Amino acid sequence: MKVLECSGEIFENIQKMAPVVHNISNYITATDCANMTLACGGSPTMADDPEEVEDIASACAGSVINMGNTAGHYQESMLRTGKINNKVGHPVLLDPVGAGAAKRRNAVLENLLQEIHFSAIRGNISEIKFVGDKSSGAKGVDAADEDLASEDTIEGIVKYAKALAARMETIIIISGPIDVVADAEKAYMIRNGHPMMSRVTGTGCMLSSALGVFLSANPDNMLEAAAVCVSAYGYAGELAYEKVQETKGGTGSLRMYLMDAMSNMDNKCFLHGAKIEEAV
Amino acid sequence: MKVLECSGEIFENIQKMAPVVHNISNYITATDCANMTLACGGSPTMADDPEEVEDIASACAGSVINMGNTAGHYQESMLRTGKINNKVGHPVLLDPVGAGAAKRRNAVLENLLQEIHFSAIRGNISEIKFVGDKSSGAKGVDAADEDLASEDTIEGIVKYAKALAARMETIIIISGPIDVVADAEKAYMIRNGHPMMSRVTGTGCMLSSALGVFLSANPDNMLEAAAVCVSAYGYAGELAYEKVQETKGGTGSLRMYLMDAMSNMDNKCFLHGAKIEEAV
Amino acid sequence: MKVLECSGEIFENIQKMAPVVHNISNYITATDCANMTLACGGSPTMADDPEEVEDIASACAGSVINMGNTAGHYQESMLRTGKINNKVGHPVLLDPVGAGAAKRRNAVLENLLQEIHFSAIRGNISEIKFVGDKSSGAKGVDAADEDLASEDTIEGIVKYAKALAARMETIIIISGPIDVVADAEKAYMIRNGHPMMSRVTGTGCMLSSALGVFLSANPDNMLEAAAVCVSAYGYAGELAYEKVQETKGGTGSLRMYLMDAMSNMDNKCFLHGAKIEEAV
Repeated sequence: MKVLECSGEIFENIQKMAPVVHNISNYITATDCANMTLACGGSPTMADDPEEVEDIASACAGSVINMGNTAGHYQESMLRTGKINNKVGHPVLLDPVGAGAAKRRNAVLENLLQEIHFSAIRGNISEIKFVGDKSSGAKGVDAADEDLASEDTIEGIVKYAKALAARMETIIIISGPIDVVADAEKAYMIRNGHPMMSRVTGTGCMLSSALGVFLSANPDNMLEAAAVCVSAYGYAGELAYEKVQETKGGTGSLRMYLMDAMSNMDNKCFLHGAKIEEAV
Repeated sequence: MKVLECSGEIFENIQKMAPVVHNISNYITATDCANMTLACGGSPTMADDPEEVEDIASACAGSVINMGNTAGHYQESMLRTGKINNKVGHPVLLDPVGAGAAKRRNAVLENLLQEIHFSAIRGNISEIKFVGDKSSGAKGVDAADEDLASEDTIEGIVKYAKALAARMETIIIISGPIDVVADAEKAYMIRNGHPMMSRVTGTGCMLSSALGVFLSANPDNMLEAAAVCVSAYGYAGELAYEKVQETKGGTGSLRMYLMDAMSNMDNKCFLHGAKIEEAV
Repeated sequence: MKVLECSGEIFENIQKMAPVVHNISNYITATDCANMTLACGGSPTMADDPEEVEDIASACAGSVINMGNTAGHYQESMLRTGKINNKVGHPVLLDPVGAGAAKRRNAVLENLLQEIHFSAIRGNISEIKFVGDKSSGAKGVDAADEDLASEDTIEGIVKYAKALAARMETIIIISGPIDVVADAEKAYMIRNGHPMMSRVTGTGCMLSSALGVFLSANPDNMLEAAAVCVSAYGYAGELAYEKVQETKGGTGSLRMYLMDAMSNMDNKCFLHGAKIEEAV
């Protein structure tokens, strides 16, 4: 499978480049996103002042636009960041946090999708369905239960992801019990991760920041880089859960051990834990 | 004592409902508040854009308004959040962070108290005294030493809390060496917690977010739900302190172990550690 | 050496005063900065509303102005905070985060330097060079590699720091593989710390907040207080790294153990680990 053949190169590219990645984030998860960027081998810059995002983003290897905070100047900062990345040809990922949860948020999303071409879009199934169809059953920032991927529904979700990726000329990454990473031609199903990760805030945001590092250092191989990242991150969650069990910890420990595991992740560890399947 | 008889139901209601709780927070403690909401069995949404708080809050089971950040759009977001909760009849708690510390902050507080009926108000004794009397001896966000509850002063504090609860038709929760939870009719004194908790930022804010979960899932039994929450949280602090001693840790560890202990808290653990007394 | 002779008094002054320190911070590192302030024996207030910073800052023992966030009202808050500290004669430290990275940020910096007399300025070598000469090779918030202190370049850096300190009538603190703390007359070179600290976000910001505590409690002996703080903080990083090795942790653990080590630091521990040399 291509993703397992080129994962070594994907990790190496990160190590060689140590990409500076720009994140427009939100204050709930920004610290964790910056630390996850570092844990993955990148260097974060989290500037969000609209008057400086163009200077900052154009000097970086790529950007992550996290829609968690839409107040004040954020919409303008997101727009400028997306456009400058499109102009200089760097990867730019969208995390449509809470898409569907409020009219204001949906209007911001609509605007971003019209003005910017995203290299990749990552969200839970409810968020991605809203990106595609302006409909979802979610409340707040969590996916609606009825939307979640299972062995029964995964085929439909893969098909949906590929079609949306084709229509939007992007990579679609859907987080859930089974993760899906798809472009128009190909999709990977990933069975890494642990349910306890959903009891820590920002595990989705952190994955988006991790993807920012993997995509920025691998612009010519983004689908596989995204699949490696999603699988490695999920496996890091499994390792973290094991440590929580060993130490009789809880959700606070899980958050720390997840960061630890990603900061120690390399290709050998990834290949040991990866559960990736190509959809046919 | 009523609180110990119904604590099982209080925990069960949280587990059944897994309430989505809306927090207007501040960027110093927001990550910890969101994680504490999750640790308690709720699901957080931290949206603060005034243009979306009404959509968000009305879809949630309750809201917590943390006055830590008064800049820019926050006052407007707090007002809208409080009003919509009053309109739909959901619990809304106020944490008057730093009340008394600055004229601007006091004006925001005054405005909130005039426009919104709060289901509960939680603060340290200096903050609560300012809510009640516009006077306190505090500097910054910590309580003034001369105000703190002790065995000598607790009777007066309980009386004060009950009178203020009666006047404002609310539940008053005063954090300190001895915590007080009171409505007009009844008051609980709680002797859980550990002094080291005051060396971690946001331990008050996190308790307010925890209360958001307990109140939102128990709207018909809010006084007892608040008492259970305050006692469980304090006991979690004791358990965290024990782990800090075992591991020769410090304040960083305490913060993590506090989250761990709340994420593992259930009625059995609570009953084991609760030190609650009804004031007569 | 003076710094080792008076370190006991420096720690004692903090313990006696438990200074309330005001921080204008940024939402990426604010939680860690507040917790570091507490870990060092101070009490943080992080208010940034321009309408209240004067009330807040004038009631504190000193302020730290962290330039990490320049958006919206922050510039105004920084200016007012600096001026009120100058007026009441309290220590005020500048952390010129990302100086040189964007035109907007540089303009904010220029304005701050014109309007405020800073008691101390702390940054990496690239940031400090920009403060001094409006030139540096940095990208984002990390120092450019060619600028970093080494045994070959340290002499020039010390000279630069002393000259800049003389010109700006301040204390210059340069973080790097070898830290430099200098005023016009004297400079200390400090060889504490561990390279892994640069893989945790906010280790620079946290040091600035720690310095806020040490300077606020020792206004008559700021150069030595700064040197003790920088060395103690670096040694805390070494102790944290050792614990990461023991527990097979990663960058998440390092962040927590750094906080732990600073919260347990005292003069005895400091004297055990300090690697300070006076430049001649």
